[in-house]
Amino acid sequence: MGFNRKDLLGIQDLEVGEIEHILEQARILKEINTRAIKKVPTLRGKTVVHLFYEPSTRTRTSFDIAAKRLSADTYSIAASTSSIVKGETLLDTLKNLEAMHPDIFVVRHSASGAPHMLARRTDASIVNAGDGMHEHPSQALLDMLTILEHKGRLDGLNVLIVGDITHSRVARSNIWGLQKMGSKVTVCGPTTLVPPDIEAMGAKVCYRLEECIPDADVIIVLRLQKERQQQMLLPSLREYSTCYCINRDRLKKAARDVLIMHPGPMNRGVEISSEVADGPYSVILDQVSNGVAVRMAVLYLLAQR
Amino acid sequence: MGFNRKDLLGIQDLEVGEIEHILEQARILKEINTRAIKKVPTLRGKTVVHLFYEPSTRTRTSFDIAAKRLSADTYSIAASTSSIVKGETLLDTLKNLEAMHPDIFVVRHSASGAPHMLARRTDASIVNAGDGMHEHPSQALLDMLTILEHKGRLDGLNVLIVGDITHSRVARSNIWGLQKMGSKVTVCGPTTLVPPDIEAMGAKVCYRLEECIPDADVIIVLRLQKERQQQMLLPSLREYSTCYCINRDRLKKAARDVLIMHPGPMNRGVEISSEVADGPYSVILDQVSNGVAVRMAVLYLLAQR
Amino acid sequence: MGFNRKDLLGIQDLEVGEIEHILEQARILKEINTRAIKKVPTLRGKTVVHLFYEPSTRTRTSFDIAAKRLSADTYSIAASTSSIVKGETLLDTLKNLEAMHPDIFVVRHSASGAPHMLARRTDASIVNAGDGMHEHPSQALLDMLTILEHKGRLDGLNVLIVGDITHSRVARSNIWGLQKMGSKVTVCGPTTLVPPDIEAMGAKVCYRLEECIPDADVIIVLRLQKERQQQMLLPSLREYSTCYCINRDRLKKAARDVLIMHPGPMNRGVEISSEVADGPYSVILDQVSNGVAVRMAVLYLLAQR
Repeated sequence: MGFNRKDLLGIQDLEVGEIEHILEQARILKEINTRAIKKVPTLRGKTVVHLFYEPSTRTRTSFDIAAKRLSADTYSIAASTSSIVKGETLLDTLKNLEAMHPDIFVVRHSASGAPHMLARRTDASIVNAGDGMHEHPSQALLDMLTILEHKGRLDGLNVLIVGDITHSRVARSNIWGLQKMGSKVTVCGPTTLVPPDIEAMGAKVCYRLEECIPDADVIIVLRLQKERQQQMLLPSLREYSTCYCINRDRLKKAARDVLIMHPGPMNRGVEISSEVADGPYSVILDQVSNGVAVRMAVLYLLAQR
Repeated sequence: MGFNRKDLLGIQDLEVGEIEHILEQARILKEINTRAIKKVPTLRGKTVVHLFYEPSTRTRTSFDIAAKRLSADTYSIAASTSSIVKGETLLDTLKNLEAMHPDIFVVRHSASGAPHMLARRTDASIVNAGDGMHEHPSQALLDMLTILEHKGRLDGLNVLIVGDITHSRVARSNIWGLQKMGSKVTVCGPTTLVPPDIEAMGAKVCYRLEECIPDADVIIVLRLQKERQQQMLLPSLREYSTCYCINRDRLKKAARDVLIMHPGPMNRGVEISSEVADGPYSVILDQVSNGVAVRMAVLYLLAQR
Repeated sequence: MGFNRKDLLGIQDLEVGEIEHILEQARILKEINTRAIKKVPTLRGKTVVHLFYEPSTRTRTSFDIAAKRLSADTYSIAASTSSIVKGETLLDTLKNLEAMHPDIFVVRHSASGAPHMLARRTDASIVNAGDGMHEHPSQALLDMLTILEHKGRLDGLNVLIVGDITHSRVARSNIWGLQKMGSKVTVCGPTTLVPPDIEAMGAKVCYRLEECIPDADVIIVLRLQKERQQQMLLPSLREYSTCYCINRDRLKKAARDVLIMHPGPMNRGVEISSEVADGPYSVILDQVSNGVAVRMAVLYLLAQR
């Protein structure tokens, strides 16, 4: 089975065969990034527009490197500071840019579903680079690729996701994706940051880290947004850290080959301790490398159709 | 007749043959934008610097796409946020960048005449991408190309420009250009927003939209800058809209093949209604596509000399 | 002797032969910038990341043009406005970007020694584009290249550096570099802006401009940061200008072939008068041109190893 869609909007609506195909493509393209000449002419003459309505250097740079290593031309519209949006609707912005004949839009927006709406209204491809609290499919794909490289499989693994589940599109995309691929997913966080509908998604919920760490093959640590405190969802960073920080002490009860992952950027000392982030179980920088590979695969596959 | 100038500063000083040559070149290059590989090596190794002293995502992106589709390397200096201008004159900034051997500067500046001053002081080509309330030549050229594509001619057409004529470089460049090409131009707007010298430019003035719509082959709707209200030039947006919004009702008396144009970004419901903007007469997105084509032509012709 | 280092961190630790090699390479590559097609494929498929923790359009653009003329792909991370640094250490930012396999980082940081710390922690090359009050090696190299082109030698020349020596990384890199190459360096400025350790670096100190101008073969005028006034290091700009502005009057006692240099951007009328900046002794724009050439040489040599 291939991947013949116009868009990559989320993990929820992908078939297993499609995920496998993207991951396989990423493994093939990944090698380009370690060559002396890190560039292939595959997307020469293709136009990729990064349309970011939320600030992001990390994800945008990863997509940008992916696009340029395939020889695409790229343009960055940072909508927060951009005049393109003054008194203009999201759809007008899209339609205007579309009239300049881009091939692919990479879109980040604070409203869940924004990329889906745009995808219905344009012939260009839309890649969802994060929409509200909904999905961040390329993050889940790079996480799956990283697990696959280290564990050789996704099927039958126990994956634990720790932190602010409610507000995390990374968590949602991973829950959908990992379960499709046969993993069992447990989420763990304070009650105020675990949404009531999470069990309907198929994930197990656990509130005490000590109980779920021993079974985990993989622990995905989420970034804690410090503004959750002002929203009264957290008593204090210190109390969060006391209960949920992934540190060396807590990992004593973990499997000897547990993988520690984090989508970045890390708050060292809050959700993860430095000795764990930089320790032997951490594959956090592999995730970043795989991010470029997965995004190369996504851009490549969308441009082929 | 060709186009052998060093600079494109305005429409006012162009010959008819030069305008025709640019438009013809744009028609030829336009096709590149719909190829699978949207890139030709024409400007390979040329350096284009976008020097923008006013914020602009739309025009800058259009020029940038035009330059890269011709394989030029581009650099963007957003002077509003740039350290390059701290304690430095406009001319020092130009001279410094010039010492790095660019071929073309695309300049936007709030002072009328700024690009002309720069053009006299550099051997590089200057393209005026908008200077104060003076000229925006690439906008007029793309408007003319769009009319030409839809009407087959410019000669003998009645073009109506509606809105804030006083502050509009789009209006000025179009009045000069369209009249050179044989169109008759009428402007319509509130008395506070129509300058007294407009008839000296050759345009007819009309204050009641109902009177001038029936004769129009083309209606160019200008963007209303909302800050005109604070300047006491407008009673209210609502009153403006009541008198000057181009909506379906008003178009009932228009020619059956009238063209509706807008330089963007639109204030839907203020100067143009959504049903008109998205309706069958609207060629607004064609303007955007032609913007890239015209800018490709301009960059190409300037780089040839 | 060649240049086989991983990084260019400063002038202080370079050998004479290494400086000569970079300057020789710059002279060879400089010619590319005046070709019709200003681009060679030397760094095709190489990735250069500009990581700027201080605002800079001028230096960043110079490095960017240098990189693209050699066909590298470039990415700009302006850390002041970037989400990449929110709650993230400098080292985490580096490590994350490193995982995307760049070849060269061009780094500017307000902390002296920051590029050196990064260089020890990455296999990628680090170019110091200015660190605190410490070094700005590419500036000293372009200054040396400019002097060499006009004087035919560095050995035995008297170079006078005027202004705020204390806060100037340009002064420090030049003092180290010029003395290595056989020049004698004198610094001149108000006592509050000349550091006590400057004589330990080998430079002569002079407080009255009139005394040191007659002997100078080259005068490097430093930019005066206006904020020095609020720091109580300067009585007033006017008094500074009265005592230290390089103007036509003062140059009457200078050598007939004196060179006037300035790293830019200039405060005309403060540290340099317009008639001197634009006059026959000024080689200020040659410095800018040589900046691109020197940076091409540095990027080229680092990428070869």
